Amino acid sequence: MSLLVVGSIALDTVETPFGSVVDALGGSATYFSLAAGLFGEVRLVGVVGEDFPEDYRRILAGRGIDTAGLVTRPGRTFRWTGAYKGAMNEAETLAVELNVFGDFNPDLPEEYRDSGFVFLANGLPSVQKAVLRQVPDARLVVCDTMNYYIENALDDLRDLLTEVDALVLNDQEARMLTGVDSLVRAGRIILTMGPTFVVIKKGEHGALLVARDGVAALPAYPTGEVKDPTGAGDSFAGGMMGSIAASGDFSFEGIKRAMGYGTAVASLTVEGFGTEALRAASRQDVEGRVRQLREMLRF
Amino acid sequence: MSLLVVGSIALDTVETPFGSVVDALGGSATYFSLAAGLFGEVRLVGVVGEDFPEDYRRILAGRGIDTAGLVTRPGRTFRWTGAYKGAMNEAETLAVELNVFGDFNPDLPEEYRDSGFVFLANGLPSVQKAVLRQVPDARLVVCDTMNYYIENALDDLRDLLTEVDALVLNDQEARMLTGVDSLVRAGRIILTMGPTFVVIKKGEHGALLVARDGVAALPAYPTGEVKDPTGAGDSFAGGMMGSIAASGDFSFEGIKRAMGYGTAVASLTVEGFGTEALRAASRQDVEGRVRQLREMLRF
Repeated sequence: MSLLVVGSIALDTVETPFGSVVDALGGSATYFSLAAGLFGEVRLVGVVGEDFPEDYRRILAGRGIDTAGLVTRPGRTFRWTGAYKGAMNEAETLAVELNVFGDFNPDLPEEYRDSGFVFLANGLPSVQKAVLRQVPDARLVVCDTMNYYIENALDDLRDLLTEVDALVLNDQEARMLTGVDSLVRAGRIILTMGPTFVVIKKGEHGALLVARDGVAALPAYPTGEVKDPTGAGDSFAGGMMGSIAASGDFSFEGIKRAMGYGTAVASLTVEGFGTEALRAASRQDVEGRVRQLREMLRF
Repeated sequence: MSLLVVGSIALDTVETPFGSVVDALGGSATYFSLAAGLFGEVRLVGVVGEDFPEDYRRILAGRGIDTAGLVTRPGRTFRWTGAYKGAMNEAETLAVELNVFGDFNPDLPEEYRDSGFVFLANGLPSVQKAVLRQVPDARLVVCDTMNYYIENALDDLRDLLTEVDALVLNDQEARMLTGVDSLVRAGRIILTMGPTFVVIKKGEHGALLVARDGVAALPAYPTGEVKDPTGAGDSFAGGMMGSIAASGDFSFEGIKRAMGYGTAVASLTVEGFGTEALRAASRQDVEGRVRQLREMLRF
């Protein structure tokens, strides 16, 4: 079924102990789409400036992503500059230029309004909510958020959480949102805020699902070849949502299986700089890694 | 087959956000034995002072642990005082009194010398090596270590690693020993130091196996009821080694299965203060949790 994503499209400048890139294709909606596009149709809603390279449009089109919702505005594309050190578990943000993304208020193309599966990537909760109003038929709406909005837009975020089906966020954000250190407990508290399930991303340590039906933890795929963690979380979400949209199954078991797919895609993403390895990955590569993951977890 | 453990037996004073205990039964060999004792015979080698409570001996005997190697020396028992805060991932050591453990140089009872499986818990590498000399028939020798010995006895530790089959240590220790942040890479570097496999313990994030035959990650069991993480790592090792000694299987698949058992036992341990929950756990409780873990990891 149709999967819609709304989020950022960026030019990323990133340095890790293994190398660096300048103005590479990035952004949450980009990683999400490239990942979800491995499973089926993806409708991308985002904004870029006039400087957005034609090559990058071709990369999105190359994955079969529907870019009818990708608008171009006068000005520069959103830029993010960051660095990873040591175990590379957390990015250090060195600079952010919101540019055209700063006052992005998505108006969905008419033909997107029947989307069945919706992912609201990181963004202002009030904007995420405005998008939600434009997809009345959605069967499953999942949102992401980040520390900035937990600190600066908590009321709007709590309001949004009463209207979505699920929240995806990282471990530090889950602790910040709930004030609780145990991630299982944090997840359970988030369930009381509205969502029927929460997926807590733990970077190299995998992900935790807390749902009304139960709790499940999956490790990350133990690749020794991490070059650049940028986009790992969004690739995970894209693989997960792509898998759910393809199967239509978001029962507890369905989500768990989808998390396995997300884990596989994320592990491929981090093995290259920027979107490089993710772009090169095929559905077969993902299936291969899912098989390895299943085999690894059988004991 | 017979499993031998050499390590500390302590009186622990511990504070966590959920409560505290004073002079509770603790120590690496204690947690290891209580965990491994769920799977079969355990031979315990350690030292206590004249103040070691009779009740604590009964706890060990109650698990059927062979205490012929537990010697009592004039003086006080080893004492450790620590605290856990926040996510409780790391203990803050507030005080250590080595007491009779300070010059412990184990002389194994004659009837222990045919032990087939040996675990050298945390201790001076030179002492660990001296024990190794007394178990000439061991089929599998696994050792643990800690930051203190990596910093202060590195030559002895590296010497020991050329003679053992495996090393169990935590993530920070693996990074410290190798100077490498990626745990998969760190594990591979440790393999070049001698061991045929390495198990890296990651606390609430589970454990990683790096062997010549492959790599595998298992998550921790996501219990929301962590009260006191003391002894989790030693319980994990005890469950793992107990399972290996019971099956005799230390192939890659055998180790993985054993890690599943270690994970289950550790998750029970942390749900109570000190050894409380571990002592109360039965083999059936462990099997129940292993079943849940297997079910959780099937997707």
